[in-house]
Amino acid sequence: MAANPIVKESKVDVLIVGAGPAGVMACNALARSGVNVRIIDQRPDKVAAGQADGIQPRTIEVFQSYGLAERLLKEGNQMHMAAFYNPSADGGIELTDRVPDVTATSARYPFEVTLHQGAIESIFLDSMREHGVEISRPVIPTSLTLSEDETLLNDPQAYPVRVELQKILENGEAGETEVVHAKFVIGADGAHSWVRRTLSISMDGEQTDYIWGVVDLNPDTDFPDIRNKTAIHSNNGSCMIIPREDDKVRIYIQLDDKTAHVTQDGRVDRSKLRPGLLLEQVQKTLHPYYIRTPEKYDWWTIYIIGQRVASKFSVKERVFIVGDACHTHSPKAGQGMNASMNDSHNLAWKLVHVLNGWAQMNLLKTYEYERRKYAQDLIDFDRQFAKLFSGKPRTKETEDGVSHEDFLKAFQTFGGFTSGIGICYLPSAITDTTYQSLASKLTVGQRVLPQIFLRAADSRPIEIQDLLPSDARFKLLVFTGDSSNPVQLEEIRAISNKLEVALASLTGGRSVGDAYGIVPISSATKANVRYNDLPKFLWSHWSRVLIDDVDVKGTLGGNGYDSYGIDPTHGAIVVVRPDGYVGTICPLQEMDFLVTYLGGFVGRG
Amino acid sequence: MAANPIVKESKVDVLIVGAGPAGVMACNALARSGVNVRIIDQRPDKVAAGQADGIQPRTIEVFQSYGLAERLLKEGNQMHMAAFYNPSADGGIELTDRVPDVTATSARYPFEVTLHQGAIESIFLDSMREHGVEISRPVIPTSLTLSEDETLLNDPQAYPVRVELQKILENGEAGETEVVHAKFVIGADGAHSWVRRTLSISMDGEQTDYIWGVVDLNPDTDFPDIRNKTAIHSNNGSCMIIPREDDKVRIYIQLDDKTAHVTQDGRVDRSKLRPGLLLEQVQKTLHPYYIRTPEKYDWWTIYIIGQRVASKFSVKERVFIVGDACHTHSPKAGQGMNASMNDSHNLAWKLVHVLNGWAQMNLLKTYEYERRKYAQDLIDFDRQFAKLFSGKPRTKETEDGVSHEDFLKAFQTFGGFTSGIGICYLPSAITDTTYQSLASKLTVGQRVLPQIFLRAADSRPIEIQDLLPSDARFKLLVFTGDSSNPVQLEEIRAISNKLEVALASLTGGRSVGDAYGIVPISSATKANVRYNDLPKFLWSHWSRVLIDDVDVKGTLGGNGYDSYGIDPTHGAIVVVRPDGYVGTICPLQEMDFLVTYLGGFVGRG
Repeated sequence: MAANPIVKESKVDVLIVGAGPAGVMACNALARSGVNVRIIDQRPDKVAAGQADGIQPRTIEVFQSYGLAERLLKEGNQMHMAAFYNPSADGGIELTDRVPDVTATSARYPFEVTLHQGAIESIFLDSMREHGVEISRPVIPTSLTLSEDETLLNDPQAYPVRVELQKILENGEAGETEVVHAKFVIGADGAHSWVRRTLSISMDGEQTDYIWGVVDLNPDTDFPDIRNKTAIHSNNGSCMIIPREDDKVRIYIQLDDKTAHVTQDGRVDRSKLRPGLLLEQVQKTLHPYYIRTPEKYDWWTIYIIGQRVASKFSVKERVFIVGDACHTHSPKAGQGMNASMNDSHNLAWKLVHVLNGWAQMNLLKTYEYERRKYAQDLIDFDRQFAKLFSGKPRTKETEDGVSHEDFLKAFQTFGGFTSGIGICYLPSAITDTTYQSLASKLTVGQRVLPQIFLRAADSRPIEIQDLLPSDARFKLLVFTGDSSNPVQLEEIRAISNKLEVALASLTGGRSVGDAYGIVPISSATKANVRYNDLPKFLWSHWSRVLIDDVDVKGTLGGNGYDSYGIDPTHGAIVVVRPDGYVGTICPLQEMDFLVTYLGGFVGRG
Repeated sequence: MAANPIVKESKVDVLIVGAGPAGVMACNALARSGVNVRIIDQRPDKVAAGQADGIQPRTIEVFQSYGLAERLLKEGNQMHMAAFYNPSADGGIELTDRVPDVTATSARYPFEVTLHQGAIESIFLDSMREHGVEISRPVIPTSLTLSEDETLLNDPQAYPVRVELQKILENGEAGETEVVHAKFVIGADGAHSWVRRTLSISMDGEQTDYIWGVVDLNPDTDFPDIRNKTAIHSNNGSCMIIPREDDKVRIYIQLDDKTAHVTQDGRVDRSKLRPGLLLEQVQKTLHPYYIRTPEKYDWWTIYIIGQRVASKFSVKERVFIVGDACHTHSPKAGQGMNASMNDSHNLAWKLVHVLNGWAQMNLLKTYEYERRKYAQDLIDFDRQFAKLFSGKPRTKETEDGVSHEDFLKAFQTFGGFTSGIGICYLPSAITDTTYQSLASKLTVGQRVLPQIFLRAADSRPIEIQDLLPSDARFKLLVFTGDSSNPVQLEEIRAISNKLEVALASLTGGRSVGDAYGIVPISSATKANVRYNDLPKFLWSHWSRVLIDDVDVKGTLGGNGYDSYGIDPTHGAIVVVRPDGYVGTICPLQEMDFLVTYLGGFVGRG
């Protein structure tokens, strides 16, 4: 394609390259916080079928924090149960075990959701549209230059990134070229990331030998676990069943070099493959159950697993890479889309704070610090899991094979990790464990445990996570102790006054309510509480005063202080980061600590 | 208005007069079942504020059965708690007690929803529109004639009702006149029903002396129970607080004759009243709490309670009256809109069956039989409750007054009734208690108890009520016992074969699946079940095979057989009427009984 003359030039706060799951997550998060954002993609339209499709429990919580879980749950399939099949005595397979698919007991949503990538992207596209942002497509970046001027690089309001974009015409030829000057760029452009290559960021790790095929189809089968997530180890090979929306099923099939037509130089010769060959493999594995060859396949592909992590996730905190651009791994544990979207979830609020002057530039360093560590853990896990999964089943003939016990143990040990529930960010400027013991069962660096409290004014049960929306504000959960005790109430009033003074200097020019979401949680009962006893500074609306009690039916809520490990006689302030992770815990009497923590990254204001 | 020449003449299956809650409920139910229905209303637009606004727990379940609860719950306010205030020693009022607002323990939704009538009507209007039905308005009926030809009256396909309609022009003058020939007419035209008066149906009952005012406003108050349903008995009068959507509150205020400006002939002189006078009364009652006079009121009215029931609910099962047209009562127990909508819910499926030839005409007699009994119970309740509510509080000076204990006892005793949960239709052709003991805790004539089961194929929890949509089909809940026991499975197969034969003659010309919703419920566990072991005749889709077990987290479902009082070794078929009420219970081995029951009202087919 010959380069066309540059026809326009524009400025943008954040340019996002790539509109896959990581890209649209970042774009939506930025757009709803009022950031001037632009997103481009080389595809002419969103994917229609296939690709990644599994949403883990923590990611559902994240969707909920953006108000997007309702649609995800309406459209998607839910996997509650995992089943395991192994060789039977008569040469077929038999059910060995069924266990909960999600083993992380604190998951708010104790299941995975499956829904094809295009439908998931649509959820974000519709939300972005409400904020006035559409994807520019098909558009490709042709050059990216980062200024070396330190003054520019240190000024969050400067535009140190110059990107040339080229429109692709319907006939495939190059359309108009334009130059975009961006404050920040996010490369969300996949495993073969142009942004990453342009920045010469290396990928560390190796290809492995496991070759897998994938088919999506509407199955006609008598296999009784076709609607469960099912791992099948047979003497004829391994496969994994992932039930999906609209009665569809995805099947991952382990292939040997011959079936996969691996060439001399280690690549898969796709021209020799067709989905029928993959299904024949499934038919052998499922014996004695049948699965009939369908008239058509919804989607199919084949790949060799590679586990790699980018050597760095940003250049000078001006150009970032997220998602597959910075980590690749096998799809079977269903992590890809989740890891990608959570990269963006982690990065977006930090950009919002820096762009608005609410935080200093160095806040952005925590993105790589937090997410690269996670990506490394992810590929370590994936390496072990893929090995177990791809191994031969243990039988009399293969005593060095993988036993069901090995596999189940790994499945459950990794449950906290695969669900995303266990993710814990290490101490940093935004994660301070000093007073961890004051809320001993809430882990600083982990997401806030789901817990139902009651609204003090009307005893309506409410999930605390629903008062922690991803709106870029830090939240202060003020565990006040028993506000119906007059002595304690006096203390609460004094604390409220001190908090008001403390926060006044930490708002970055905003009102306290715009900067912080404050939620007082009293240990008073629904019989005794008077919601409006609590100082007005602590609540912006009657619906935002909570108590720790069971609902009128006695089935929801209660024991919140206990579940969080908070002593009602001392109370505590739990500071929640805008992404829903516990930032720190502060004693009610130690406002200086709170000021130090929040002041640690607050910007010019 | 001078009559205009008749410009058109048309035929319709059902003509509904009045588009209040009862009218739109009937219209939507009929339209979604494919009935050719028309609805007219004299109002030029739906109500913008005020009027009835309380939805009881059973009515929420009914909304859910039409797929309309989600929006109701999203837009409405929830009342979980009821509070009671009584005179305090220092001349003001004080909190005496707080109790659950809903005392019916089996309520699926343990709260009332408040939302103004116009918003509720909108939910139905939007649903009707999806089925191609709009309200003709403003239109009034000017004459109604019912044929006396018995042949016509007995033929469900005949059009024995002739109604003249007149369009009202914007200037209030009479527009075009048309004649509608209807198979059936529903008068849903309110307390002063034109349909009822035209048919000369008398109202039995009396006006009482209690005079109440109502104001809707956004309160500025320090009263701590302003978001609970609160009954206040003070020495300065009584009032009741009903919190509503958008931070609004409705207050019912008891008035004496002088405040209400009652005229010599017992009517309220509305010209002398304004909402400020009502609020002054509230301000006195709430002392020592303040409630400030707002800049504007959302809505207000005043009324004298009357409790009356129509002497009959239909004329020859060709013209029916529903809602306020057949029963009027005080609004404080929040029954009006609920009773009205449930009249229509009861009637609609019966009309669908008769119109389609699936049932004989005499099915329609059960409407008056079931709903007039309920209306009588309602006014009996209302008479007692209104007396308690309007009475003076018991104090040292008024020892014959109403004590809190009296009031609370009545509140809780009537809880089953006021929630709608306890409604029980008496034995009739459609309600047969012969085998009540086989499901001893499900009451024949009551709605199916909410219960979470698991889907056998994927262990996803599902509320059984969600498999009982208001789609005009009878449902058969086939409690099979343990299908993972091979002996029992053989029995289940034999029973399935017999059921297939039995139902074949009872479909009224439809396929079995179009006529009946069959849901097998096995007592097998999620560890052992194979969903596709069950005979294919019993399930139309893999998602419709249920088991009685707890979910993977151990918190939802389980004990369903026990909760329903069904012995897994015997099983049972629970036959559910299209309106969600238990029609009868049938032993698995007694298909003849099932045939007799269903054949008792099945039509020509």
